[in-house]
Amino acid sequence: MNIGIYPGSFDPITYGHLDIIARSSKLFDKLIVAVLTNPRKNALFTVDERIEMIRESVKDFDNIEIESFSGLLVDFARMKKAKAIIKGLRAVSDFEYELQMALMNSKLDNEIETIFIMTSSKYSFLSSSIVKEVSSFGGCVAGLVPPIVEERLRQKFNMK
Amino acid sequence: MNIGIYPGSFDPITYGHLDIIARSSKLFDKLIVAVLTNPRKNALFTVDERIEMIRESVKDFDNIEIESFSGLLVDFARMKKAKAIIKGLRAVSDFEYELQMALMNSKLDNEIETIFIMTSSKYSFLSSSIVKEVSSFGGCVAGLVPPIVEERLRQKFNMK
Amino acid sequence: MNIGIYPGSFDPITYGHLDIIARSSKLFDKLIVAVLTNPRKNALFTVDERIEMIRESVKDFDNIEIESFSGLLVDFARMKKAKAIIKGLRAVSDFEYELQMALMNSKLDNEIETIFIMTSSKYSFLSSSIVKEVSSFGGCVAGLVPPIVEERLRQKFNMK
Amino acid sequence: MNIGIYPGSFDPITYGHLDIIARSSKLFDKLIVAVLTNPRKNALFTVDERIEMIRESVKDFDNIEIESFSGLLVDFARMKKAKAIIKGLRAVSDFEYELQMALMNSKLDNEIETIFIMTSSKYSFLSSSIVKEVSSFGGCVAGLVPPIVEERLRQKFNMK
Amino acid sequence: MNIGIYPGSFDPITYGHLDIIARSSKLFDKLIVAVLTNPRKNALFTVDERIEMIRESVKDFDNIEIESFSGLLVDFARMKKAKAIIKGLRAVSDFEYELQMALMNSKLDNEIETIFIMTSSKYSFLSSSIVKEVSSFGGCVAGLVPPIVEERLRQKFNMK
Amino acid sequence: MNIGIYPGSFDPITYGHLDIIARSSKLFDKLIVAVLTNPRKNALFTVDERIEMIRESVKDFDNIEIESFSGLLVDFARMKKAKAIIKGLRAVSDFEYELQMALMNSKLDNEIETIFIMTSSKYSFLSSSIVKEVSSFGGCVAGLVPPIVEERLRQKFNMK
Repeated sequence: MNIGIYPGSFDPITYGHLDIIARSSKLFDKLIVAVLTNPRKNALFTVDERIEMIRESVKDFDNIEIESFSGLLVDFARMKKAKAIIKGLRAVSDFEYELQMALMNSKLDNEIETIFIMTSSKYSFLSSSIVKEVSSFGGCVAGLVPPIVEERLRQKFNMK
Repeated sequence: MNIGIYPGSFDPITYGHLDIIARSSKLFDKLIVAVLTNPRKNALFTVDERIEMIRESVKDFDNIEIESFSGLLVDFARMKKAKAIIKGLRAVSDFEYELQMALMNSKLDNEIETIFIMTSSKYSFLSSSIVKEVSSFGGCVAGLVPPIVEERLRQKFNMK
Repeated sequence: MNIGIYPGSFDPITYGHLDIIARSSKLFDKLIVAVLTNPRKNALFTVDERIEMIRESVKDFDNIEIESFSGLLVDFARMKKAKAIIKGLRAVSDFEYELQMALMNSKLDNEIETIFIMTSSKYSFLSSSIVKEVSSFGGCVAGLVPPIVEERLRQKFNMK
Repeated sequence: MNIGIYPGSFDPITYGHLDIIARSSKLFDKLIVAVLTNPRKNALFTVDERIEMIRESVKDFDNIEIESFSGLLVDFARMKKAKAIIKGLRAVSDFEYELQMALMNSKLDNEIETIFIMTSSKYSFLSSSIVKEVSSFGGCVAGLVPPIVEERLRQKFNMK
Repeated sequence: MNIGIYPGSFDPITYGHLDIIARSSKLFDKLIVAVLTNPRKNALFTVDERIEMIRESVKDFDNIEIESFSGLLVDFARMKKAKAIIKGLRAVSDFEYELQMALMNSKLDNEIETIFIMTSSKYSFLSSSIVKEVSSFGGCVAGLVPPIVEERLRQKFNMK
Repeated sequence: MNIGIYPGSFDPITYGHLDIIARSSKLFDKLIVAVLTNPRKNALFTVDERIEMIRESVKDFDNIEIESFSGLLVDFARMKKAKAIIKGLRAVSDFEYELQMALMNSKLDNEIETIFIMTSSKYSFLSSSIVKEVSSFGGCVAGLVPPIVEERLRQKFNMK
């Protein structure tokens, strides 16, 4: 079975992430959305909240699993018998960092391939950080994140 | 069956191309290496010569087909029932052009995905053009192209 | 009066250009769309054909003039009493070339400012060249260019 | 009336900022220099100190207003009836971040345009951060910032 | 005597740094490896530990001196009578930051030149940060750093 | 003796090239300005004219030699016993192409180092092509090229 892993912080998931998930899910028999548990990074949402929002957003797909992981991504990928890591690319700055990580990961385990998928142009400006920033000032993020994320952001920032 | 297409001019094939082919061939049941027949571009080798060099270079793989095509890549991909187009990325300038093509191709047929694979760092500087330029001045291209390509380049540039 | 100039080859005009025109026209009292007559570049359409397609595409705006020019852009801008040259930016490679031209133009005439407007993300992959290439292979360019351009491209490439 | 907004931290203002201000002020009837009050970012100067240095530096212009703001820039721009947000571009990395923000802002309010002006090449390396860093080590920043800023930096870092 | 300075944090030194050192040492009569003492940056290793690892790694060269410095690099370079500052370049993002610093340094002292050397392609993805991150999760960094650094990283992260 | 080579087309030499020459000449005992004779590229000036303009422009330096070469740069560098090839960097697009060439050259002869020097910010937009283009339309290029080049350009384009 052809297994792919789509790793990220998903703090929170956006329509940009969902675009990559929808397109990757057709290329693999099973797609694992892997939520990175990074104690050093200040997250807005807990890992459980992030998983809940992803679960709700991908409920119409039938070949997607959601898991959390910490440590080295290649170790997690090997344990899950994944053939490929999927990354979304938006901009040149993404590209350079991701290239560095892909080369490092292939050094750590050259059986696991990293493949890149371009984010759809209509989400090219979208990131979890920008969604949180706009939302924290009361800006509207409809059309950028799924309804459950909009609602959770409203709750976090105490707005009606 | 999961079919991928790796398109290019391959004028001539290099170890950078072969690196992408080797890695892509594990992700698909069948990989089609598609040689672009472009009458507007001056090629050093004919399409037949290019196919012969590719054939010799990939003879140890058992899930690779070599074909030539002209016209729109998405039309060829659809006809071949391919799920994905594979492109190798080396540098930022590649990235921008390929992003533009990937977005255009997804507009022309959104059932066909473009996936990108980073060229191994040891071939990051390698291109068919640079191989031809070095070779035309009598420079040594061993380690950059398969032996059959070295030989054919020597013949083209009349060297012993 | 605040006059802006939007220069280009417009061979042919696309919805990406029209997006920049629509947005620039609000910033200036008059916007001059200036079609570059460059004998060294092989154009698909004559200057007259290009102007006709622009005229048809901007007929709903009331502060736009269309002109052709050759020679130095700053000379044309000075003659037209324009305060600013408008350029659309899509990608990093555009950016570097346009930066070079803007600095050169400000050296040639530092009274004329160059301002940049980002192309809307949905047209970020769009260029006249890609439209011509796709069209020459019979690909559909609806949604990328105005109807009159679609029709003219069909005529040029002898298609029904 | 044509109103433009030039937002930033201005911590402190440099000759690079003043170059953008001088050139933008010719394009608009009124230019608002908008000082971002961001409690999350550690500033060297208070908002009042920053405004004082800007005021002193732009005193020879007669169409410039200085204000501070917090929250979403588009909300502030709408309240001020501004038609355009002005951003200075120096480098490719600026470009990508600013593109992302411009696209997000046009999603939040598509009546407000973002326009970009290239920083003059002689200030292309200049930023408030680099000025503060050099100044903190006793380096000379004459020619990079207005005299009042030089003086205030000397006071901050207790130097004669 | 022709003296060059290669500055950095070296926290810790990698084979990428050593590649630049080996190649620079041939261009200068004396090469000073200058370890930046930056109290604001959280280092994993103390300056003494970093110097010890560099010393061990460059012991086969006979024209290399190791020193620590704080304050402005150009002041240190002038004091050491160095003609040139050497920087390694890996990627576009390096390039822009280093260009900014080189232009600032030439403003501060235009007698000192900054020269750039491309990192060998096989180390193009390598940085001290990525080495520390991989090492902190127990990943293997052999082939990326000298043996003494591997050992010190194991000690820091309490591994056998 | 420490010998450096600064290769290029110099069609014609600009103040940007002269800036790199002046700065490189301090780092080497002898600097060879190497004019590439490329029959495939359409040059405006003959190799002899280019050499004459360079000779006139560097007459105040006493450690500069001017030569023409064809074929592989590394072969020429080896023959001249040069330790290093010098390239000027202006922009990200330069950077990528030059990185590719530097890696290829180090593969062809790893005894010859490529070093990069940033072009002074005031010449960052300057290139021989832009000078020729502006000049061909009668634009003024004083301050961008030495007086002899201004004069020769006027002669080429039949202007008084």
